[in-house]
Amino acid sequence: MMRKRSENTFDAAPAVAGNGLIGRRALLGRSVAFAGAIGTGVGPSLTGAAAEPLSVPQWSKEPGAPFVGYGQPSKFEASVARETFNPPNEPGSGVAFTPIHLLDGMITPNGLHYERSHSGIPEINPDAHRLVIHGLVRRPLIFTLDALARYPMESRIVFLECAGNGADLYEQDPVDETAQTLQGLISCAEWTGVKLSMLLDEAGVDPRAQWLLAEGADAPTMSRSIPMAKAMKDAVIALYQNGERLRPSNGYPMRLLLPGYEGNMNIKWLRRIKVTQEPTITRDETSHYTMLLQDDKAWQFYFPQDIKSVITRPSPGLMMKGPGFYEISGLAWSGKARVAKVEVSADGGKSWAPAALQQPVLPIATTRFRMAWRWDGASATLQSRATDEEGNVQPTREKLVAERGNKAFYHCNAITTWSVSRTGEVKHVYA
Amino acid sequence: MMRKRSENTFDAAPAVAGNGLIGRRALLGRSVAFAGAIGTGVGPSLTGAAAEPLSVPQWSKEPGAPFVGYGQPSKFEASVARETFNPPNEPGSGVAFTPIHLLDGMITPNGLHYERSHSGIPEINPDAHRLVIHGLVRRPLIFTLDALARYPMESRIVFLECAGNGADLYEQDPVDETAQTLQGLISCAEWTGVKLSMLLDEAGVDPRAQWLLAEGADAPTMSRSIPMAKAMKDAVIALYQNGERLRPSNGYPMRLLLPGYEGNMNIKWLRRIKVTQEPTITRDETSHYTMLLQDDKAWQFYFPQDIKSVITRPSPGLMMKGPGFYEISGLAWSGKARVAKVEVSADGGKSWAPAALQQPVLPIATTRFRMAWRWDGASATLQSRATDEEGNVQPTREKLVAERGNKAFYHCNAITTWSVSRTGEVKHVYA
Repeated sequence: MMRKRSENTFDAAPAVAGNGLIGRRALLGRSVAFAGAIGTGVGPSLTGAAAEPLSVPQWSKEPGAPFVGYGQPSKFEASVARETFNPPNEPGSGVAFTPIHLLDGMITPNGLHYERSHSGIPEINPDAHRLVIHGLVRRPLIFTLDALARYPMESRIVFLECAGNGADLYEQDPVDETAQTLQGLISCAEWTGVKLSMLLDEAGVDPRAQWLLAEGADAPTMSRSIPMAKAMKDAVIALYQNGERLRPSNGYPMRLLLPGYEGNMNIKWLRRIKVTQEPTITRDETSHYTMLLQDDKAWQFYFPQDIKSVITRPSPGLMMKGPGFYEISGLAWSGKARVAKVEVSADGGKSWAPAALQQPVLPIATTRFRMAWRWDGASATLQSRATDEEGNVQPTREKLVAERGNKAFYHCNAITTWSVSRTGEVKHVYA
Repeated sequence: MMRKRSENTFDAAPAVAGNGLIGRRALLGRSVAFAGAIGTGVGPSLTGAAAEPLSVPQWSKEPGAPFVGYGQPSKFEASVARETFNPPNEPGSGVAFTPIHLLDGMITPNGLHYERSHSGIPEINPDAHRLVIHGLVRRPLIFTLDALARYPMESRIVFLECAGNGADLYEQDPVDETAQTLQGLISCAEWTGVKLSMLLDEAGVDPRAQWLLAEGADAPTMSRSIPMAKAMKDAVIALYQNGERLRPSNGYPMRLLLPGYEGNMNIKWLRRIKVTQEPTITRDETSHYTMLLQDDKAWQFYFPQDIKSVITRPSPGLMMKGPGFYEISGLAWSGKARVAKVEVSADGGKSWAPAALQQPVLPIATTRFRMAWRWDGASATLQSRATDEEGNVQPTREKLVAERGNKAFYHCNAITTWSVSRTGEVKHVYA
């Protein structure tokens, strides 16, 4: 009954780049998990036309748990959690990293969206919260949440990335981190809210006004200056995140959404927008969020997140289970345009092949990429390199550090490199 | 300082259909919330160039809550929950309705995805769970979750709808329900998993095989017959839901996904696929999920969910707060194709205008539609009517009941009607 398997397994699929990368299309009609040969726990091949009788576990013998109003993940998924970094003596300050190595698809579930907080998560009573628009306007306005929710809405799937995501790649030596703690300050959700341009039109912006100040209701009243052009183009006062009202950690009851701009500018717990002629030069754009270069000068107002990608699987902490077929999978994003292309290398950048991009590829959203790989069990060096529709290409770390030096901290979009050892251990390295 | 407001408010926007429907484009540059006039808590209009000083609430004076590994909604959102219906003496059997009237966008957050369970939610240990593919195959296969997770994946944003969603519209008289309990067995998520065709190819399907049996690991081993053509076309063994592993209530650790087919066929807690020549005629496709017609004959194997839409806002339970601007918003979907058009009526179907469709409009996904409405405070009758790209049009209730009678239960895609009274109360009625 058994067919000859050697000809139609993935073993015979032609390579598209060095060290085992194979075309996804070439997998069609081929078997990737031939019994016992890839060591993944794929069953014994069962003989005859019927499978071995499945054992009947306890959960098939008794009624299960009742419905609940708001559901939770399985208790067996408890390790799928954000990892947090709190500087000592700063309660609630720091970051919570999304476990990107344990997720798939493009959407980040709300419970796992990354966080950056400057003084914890305020518990805001939505009925008592107000948003004010004032400054250089004909008619200052004050909004309750109920009033805002009466306006026309729009929805958009948009990524947010902390300006400091991947900053460790500026370090002299590769830090021993996972994809989560190295690059996990990236998340993507469907946001719904009111276009800021509509509210500004209603307030009547003075023609001299070129900037806004946006301020949060958290204890440090986190605040940033925003160019008026961006506010009028595509800024949104977001009220919903993946269908439901914002999570407290993401700005409940309202936040500013500036598609493509560094995370901290998307002011959470938004309470005030002041229309101004010049940027306000707030503490958060002087002491933080400026980029020190090697000549001790600093860049200020570097807003969009650059083209970037990271391989999430395999990645450190996820052991390879012997030679055979693997899908290399990851996320790519650009704050400027749609992702046009992601290339993957298994030989440290010597050769590259284009990965499949999961449709729909949306502007300013994460894009899942996938690449088929035949790991021969030798050491390998995995990289991904993204290009956006404006032609921006993700740089090597070498190139970026040569330009900016080791004192830079923000906007590191360099290629991340994972080494795979013969034992299947995956580590962060520099290529 | 104040400009004349009467000319550039939404009051002056031209109508596109009867009883106050106005074009969304006509809103551009117009004010919808003129101070004090729409009674939503907007304003007072503040005089002078600066807003009234905002009061500083307690949450702006102290550090907020620390990070947590897996986040939860605000305690102020506790009412945003699934409502459940359990028949007496059947623990865990019944349905949990998504609160569609309180959500916006297209994605349903995992905690609020609708549920239909026949005997509760099994707590499955993923390491002990197995999936078997057997029957008319050359090589029966047994998969652990780890083995399945090694295959190439794909992601897709797809709605699921219970076959019984909206069944109350077959009733003689309109039931007094909300959008949630009348039409809330619809949800939409990004699902990621392995194409079933790849696994079937690997098992080697006998050319005589035209059907599959798919069986769950819940206590009733819920099982359905699936046409082979559908399995080979776009069926997926889903492992991830909105980025994270499936929720227990949605089939953890794996479920069948049959895009566009009635919810119950998307077998949760999937444990077995048997390849067969004929449909198996299981209990779940005889005692349930057949459609009794007025001549006492029944339709069996009515798989795809038909073109449908429902207005979620305004809807029963959400009081209208006086005349003025409202955005009519809702969801449309078709199990057969992309949504092509949604029309809205405010006069009970006498006149219609096309609603704006939120991009991207994806096949077999919910599509958010939005329509601007100037409510004059008189009674109104709201309806939405969707059309898909195959030209299928959502029927009136009258037409559907004339065809199927009042004994039918499943696949009710009739137009839902909400009446708005002068006091602003919204109710389910028949047009």
